[in-house]
Amino acid sequence: MTTEIPLTAPLGESAAAAARERLDALTKPRGSLGKLEALAVRLCAIRGARPTRPYREFAVLLAAGDHGVCAEGVSAYPAEVTRQMVAAFLAGHAAINAIARTVGADVVVADVGVRGERFAPHAALIDVRVADGAANFARGAAMPAADVERALAAGAAAFGALRSRREYDAIALGEMGIGNTTSAAAIVAALTGAEPAHVVGRGTGVDDAGLARKRAVVAAAVAGIGSRDPRVVAAAVGGYEIVALAGAILAARRRRVPVVLDGFIVGAAALLATAIEPSAVEVCIAAHRSVEPGHAIVLAALGLDPLLDLDLRLGEGSGAALALPLLGAATRVLLEMKTFAEAGVSGG
Amino acid sequence: MTTEIPLTAPLGESAAAAARERLDALTKPRGSLGKLEALAVRLCAIRGARPTRPYREFAVLLAAGDHGVCAEGVSAYPAEVTRQMVAAFLAGHAAINAIARTVGADVVVADVGVRGERFAPHAALIDVRVADGAANFARGAAMPAADVERALAAGAAAFGALRSRREYDAIALGEMGIGNTTSAAAIVAALTGAEPAHVVGRGTGVDDAGLARKRAVVAAAVAGIGSRDPRVVAAAVGGYEIVALAGAILAARRRRVPVVLDGFIVGAAALLATAIEPSAVEVCIAAHRSVEPGHAIVLAALGLDPLLDLDLRLGEGSGAALALPLLGAATRVLLEMKTFAEAGVSGG
Repeated sequence: MTTEIPLTAPLGESAAAAARERLDALTKPRGSLGKLEALAVRLCAIRGARPTRPYREFAVLLAAGDHGVCAEGVSAYPAEVTRQMVAAFLAGHAAINAIARTVGADVVVADVGVRGERFAPHAALIDVRVADGAANFARGAAMPAADVERALAAGAAAFGALRSRREYDAIALGEMGIGNTTSAAAIVAALTGAEPAHVVGRGTGVDDAGLARKRAVVAAAVAGIGSRDPRVVAAAVGGYEIVALAGAILAARRRRVPVVLDGFIVGAAALLATAIEPSAVEVCIAAHRSVEPGHAIVLAALGLDPLLDLDLRLGEGSGAALALPLLGAATRVLLEMKTFAEAGVSGG
Repeated sequence: MTTEIPLTAPLGESAAAAARERLDALTKPRGSLGKLEALAVRLCAIRGARPTRPYREFAVLLAAGDHGVCAEGVSAYPAEVTRQMVAAFLAGHAAINAIARTVGADVVVADVGVRGERFAPHAALIDVRVADGAANFARGAAMPAADVERALAAGAAAFGALRSRREYDAIALGEMGIGNTTSAAAIVAALTGAEPAHVVGRGTGVDDAGLARKRAVVAAAVAGIGSRDPRVVAAAVGGYEIVALAGAILAARRRRVPVVLDGFIVGAAALLATAIEPSAVEVCIAAHRSVEPGHAIVLAALGLDPLLDLDLRLGEGSGAALALPLLGAATRVLLEMKTFAEAGVSGG
């Protein structure tokens, strides 16, 4: 069982140092496993101890929500696709399901803000809906201030519900929400001060006219915020699933569970989480570098270095799930390799 | 059963086109799975058909050999480490064993040119030894011309022996041979015309003086070759395990089996293979971009784009093995996802 500890309690520096020392003694040139070694050290720091077995119990937590800003013509897909894709996740035939089966991860969807009637109960669904989608932030606030707190709590509750099902070694975070690259771009621009033009991309593949509308909508919204307070930003331009993911990351930091970040949108959620509590980044592992242009800005702001180079831009937690075997490999290297002395191999 | 077909028989263009068409119809923005989609198409082309089930039967073929050039002080480790690490692979406690267990791959070592007495029979060993290590190419040819053919045949035989054990879906290629980044650098410089200074790196971690010696040895050897004929280059500066890996790649092309290339040294073997038969590259998948500086030159010459970004420089097939789950994911996406029409999701 994990115990709730204060958010800012330091991670396990002595466990990290012991892992570093062990890695340096193993039968390989020092540092030759590159980011895999850094990952092993990070996992020990998060846990506060060396793992007792290789990591292999994984889940993908997919937060879903709708976006009123779709009315501005910023997406290549109609808003109803959010709901249809949640149904596809539950039925098990979307990309994330195929990828999760490959890596042995469970897929669970948290409905935080999908429009329309509630989904029927399903083993893979966590119903923590706060609202019927975010409002169109081109015409006013995306959500009431009180909903920011409710969405943060919904994400934390979904995370807790998932972990109470099983003691997952790590959780990959993903999202579904037509229009949410527009919301994420506004969040990233508002929190980092980056030029809106640099953080707005084509998302699922909007055309040139749509891209121009998207840039204009984001620039106008960001200009209207006038604050870097994460709760103010979230209320102004957030999406329910993005704010919930920030809540899940904060919960992961409290419980000391590694979370693997997918691409641009989950990255925007991590920026919100770290703006609320900087130590939240300590449990975050960046999976890949998305082709969405704002993602590089997010990764730089978080100080995270991604593991995969796959030119992904799907979302759904697909990149995060693809990185999960690397956590398995990092822990196995630490637990199953022998040192030069143990193996009787001559040192360098 | 696979049938021996002529090396240059074209791969399955119609299977590739069908895969591309299916991928474009699946419930995701077109192309949004990036390199994973290109990988799925490539795997269909290699097989000449859509796979009948997700790829998950994998092996790592580790070719091992010693290098007389170690006498020039070009490596951070003593030459006896080659033999000791082969023992570690067979005992199952090296990095590649830990990683292979993570991804569900068998590890098999082919002794092509290790020095000293033969290894005792072992289930994970294929004894195809051609010689007791390569000669010091700073003082003469690395091997007789006849040994180039024998090493190519040894690699093909090892590949065939491995595939006859089990119908592996793909085989990751790795190597062990203290001194072999020096041999690989000379091969790459000789075959591509790249400046020796650009292809020589620190390998397992040689110091500044060793790096200077390594550069001088490679530059002098390459200047003395005066040919880009792969067999001439292999005899002059090759290593038995590197030439054998080229033979394994040629065998993979004949049998239409995907091979996942590890880093710089396996890349040098792929350059040898493609210099012998250009179509060999069609079955090659690049796993990662090594920190060894010559690897970027190898990847550019092969026209391959790596999947992982892990700053690896270990060898042993470690990077190649880490990429194997991506083959599983690529085939599952193709086989298990539904199209927009099948899933009832609105198109873009």
